[in-house]
Amino acid sequence: MADPLPWDAGSTWNFEDQPLDTPVPVIDWNTAERNIIRTQRICDEAGVANRPHIKTHKSVELARLQIRHGAAGITCQKLGEAEVMADAGIDDILISYNILGAAKHPRLARLNSRVSLTVACDNWIVAMDLGKAVAGSGKRLRVLVECDTGRERCGVATPEAAASLAQAISELPDLAFAGLLLYPPNGACAEARAFVDETRGLCAQRGLDIETVSAGGTPNLAYAGQFSETEFRAGTCIFNDRQMVSLGAARPQDCALFVYSTVVSHPASNRVMLDAGSKALTSELVGFADYGFFPDYPQARLVRFAEEHGFVDVSDCPNVPAIGEIVRVLPNHVCPVVNMYDEIQTVRDGVISSRLNIDARGRVA
Amino acid sequence: MADPLPWDAGSTWNFEDQPLDTPVPVIDWNTAERNIIRTQRICDEAGVANRPHIKTHKSVELARLQIRHGAAGITCQKLGEAEVMADAGIDDILISYNILGAAKHPRLARLNSRVSLTVACDNWIVAMDLGKAVAGSGKRLRVLVECDTGRERCGVATPEAAASLAQAISELPDLAFAGLLLYPPNGACAEARAFVDETRGLCAQRGLDIETVSAGGTPNLAYAGQFSETEFRAGTCIFNDRQMVSLGAARPQDCALFVYSTVVSHPASNRVMLDAGSKALTSELVGFADYGFFPDYPQARLVRFAEEHGFVDVSDCPNVPAIGEIVRVLPNHVCPVVNMYDEIQTVRDGVISSRLNIDARGRVA
Repeated sequence: MADPLPWDAGSTWNFEDQPLDTPVPVIDWNTAERNIIRTQRICDEAGVANRPHIKTHKSVELARLQIRHGAAGITCQKLGEAEVMADAGIDDILISYNILGAAKHPRLARLNSRVSLTVACDNWIVAMDLGKAVAGSGKRLRVLVECDTGRERCGVATPEAAASLAQAISELPDLAFAGLLLYPPNGACAEARAFVDETRGLCAQRGLDIETVSAGGTPNLAYAGQFSETEFRAGTCIFNDRQMVSLGAARPQDCALFVYSTVVSHPASNRVMLDAGSKALTSELVGFADYGFFPDYPQARLVRFAEEHGFVDVSDCPNVPAIGEIVRVLPNHVCPVVNMYDEIQTVRDGVISSRLNIDARGRVA
Repeated sequence: MADPLPWDAGSTWNFEDQPLDTPVPVIDWNTAERNIIRTQRICDEAGVANRPHIKTHKSVELARLQIRHGAAGITCQKLGEAEVMADAGIDDILISYNILGAAKHPRLARLNSRVSLTVACDNWIVAMDLGKAVAGSGKRLRVLVECDTGRERCGVATPEAAASLAQAISELPDLAFAGLLLYPPNGACAEARAFVDETRGLCAQRGLDIETVSAGGTPNLAYAGQFSETEFRAGTCIFNDRQMVSLGAARPQDCALFVYSTVVSHPASNRVMLDAGSKALTSELVGFADYGFFPDYPQARLVRFAEEHGFVDVSDCPNVPAIGEIVRVLPNHVCPVVNMYDEIQTVRDGVISSRLNIDARGRVA
């Protein structure tokens, strides 16, 4: 993928009074809040509920801010994330995931008893297991049938299979069929609409009502309302990243998170070394040829990582960052980067502010 | 890289009484301890001190076990890791890294005052900054000159540059030149020896004594003692991984850590989906074409990740793991995987045991 040049989002933050202890991600709070407001406005204008995916920020404070700006609830990808958010008082949660396994039964039952919970399911074995988990709890678990409208991740493949699984779910005593979950390929509205509309018809023939249709993905925000969805879950748009800019889903000035790193060595004329490696920035390439983008040194290429070293090829740089200089790196994919840190520095109104707790960091189970 | 087949390390653990809450890494404690003992024996037989690199396990308990088995001290890559280990009472620490930046000055001075500390340095700017950090503390900081003997990461490029930097360090009032640090390419003993021996001669001409020569890398353990080194720092050998097996640096039965993951979907005949994605296993390829190895399904290929999903191509599998089945994955590179978790399950004598705290997890600064 190509980077948009010239990069026009200036670095206006003043760190002189308080030297940064690098490597460290820094969130521009004003940009993040502007992104939250913009996402809410897009959903409002499309007439769909906004249910932001917290997998990107994993932060209670930011989830609350999203709700304050109008979000109808939140989306989590894992049970452990939802538990953290429920502990913080957030009471309307979708887990867009096939939750499966005996170890999760008591956790799922407890969570369902204390918040308005919805989960996803794309097969009969998961449906049976979900029923087992909440059996006898006195409260049905709301379940969306996950549908594959072209992305080839999870999801039933056809409207017939969706309707059939919906019926099976509706017949289980402890579950409530609540609708459909989609994660359409970027911009693939027509396929999603056709799938949803056909499934709606098949469900109606079986006396089943599709109450909720959840669609998602930051690159799909531009098409919000065109997937026959009732609610939209986008995650990355709160911070954005190199991938979102390259896809045209964000502008440079919409990027709210950069990793700041110090040049610690210049061992060869064509190479400088950063104190940020794969443990600071992750090895995600997501289609790029290198591991991050330097807005202030656009010709520098982060070509390789050791765990704590970034190898920067500066062959094409008219100016080379000096040893001791702190450079900012725009991550290829921001979500796994946030997940590396227990807390992240914030900047508000251009000055260093508090640290943000990444409360659900590492909650993969 | 190729995987050695057939895989002969059997899965003999019995998890039936206590269902695993996946995805979860599991460490076979007996294997890890055997690896610790083996590494110590190799160093003992080579006549070099063993200074294991804790970047792999980041655990106080395992660092203590390494010392109990004979390690002379430990190696850390970052100041934050060393602080955690010092807090736990470990008092002989090498940080094999160019530490740089004003924010680190008070931290470095405090650490140097309370443990026997050595750091690395490959340039004059870092040397000056190290001196500033500990100035006035009343205790000199021991510094090794990092030398590049072929790996092209950090390090001065020639023995002349090494001796010159050694002299500069020795002339700074708050630093003590203590020797050399090498990270040789795998098996490149002759180049390392030539570099060290020539530097030793040049230093002697300047009246400088090289007390310590630190060499490292698990694939280099087989050559311990052949780098003109006085001490050896290896990290990965405590757990090993797919990369170490492929390089011939470990046998399958030396692998102590696997990530256990549940099959949560089988959406197409050629694809099953795991509940372990890039946030559980990292996106490290380290030369492989896929993201992990399934010892019990060697034909299955972990071809893609979403953050919380693993895409497994089962086209070539005579038997396909069923939905609900828990499979074990050998990570390509174990070190960054450990760094994703605050605690990790252990198995001792074949049964589920306690959880191990990953005390220095995320300490990248």
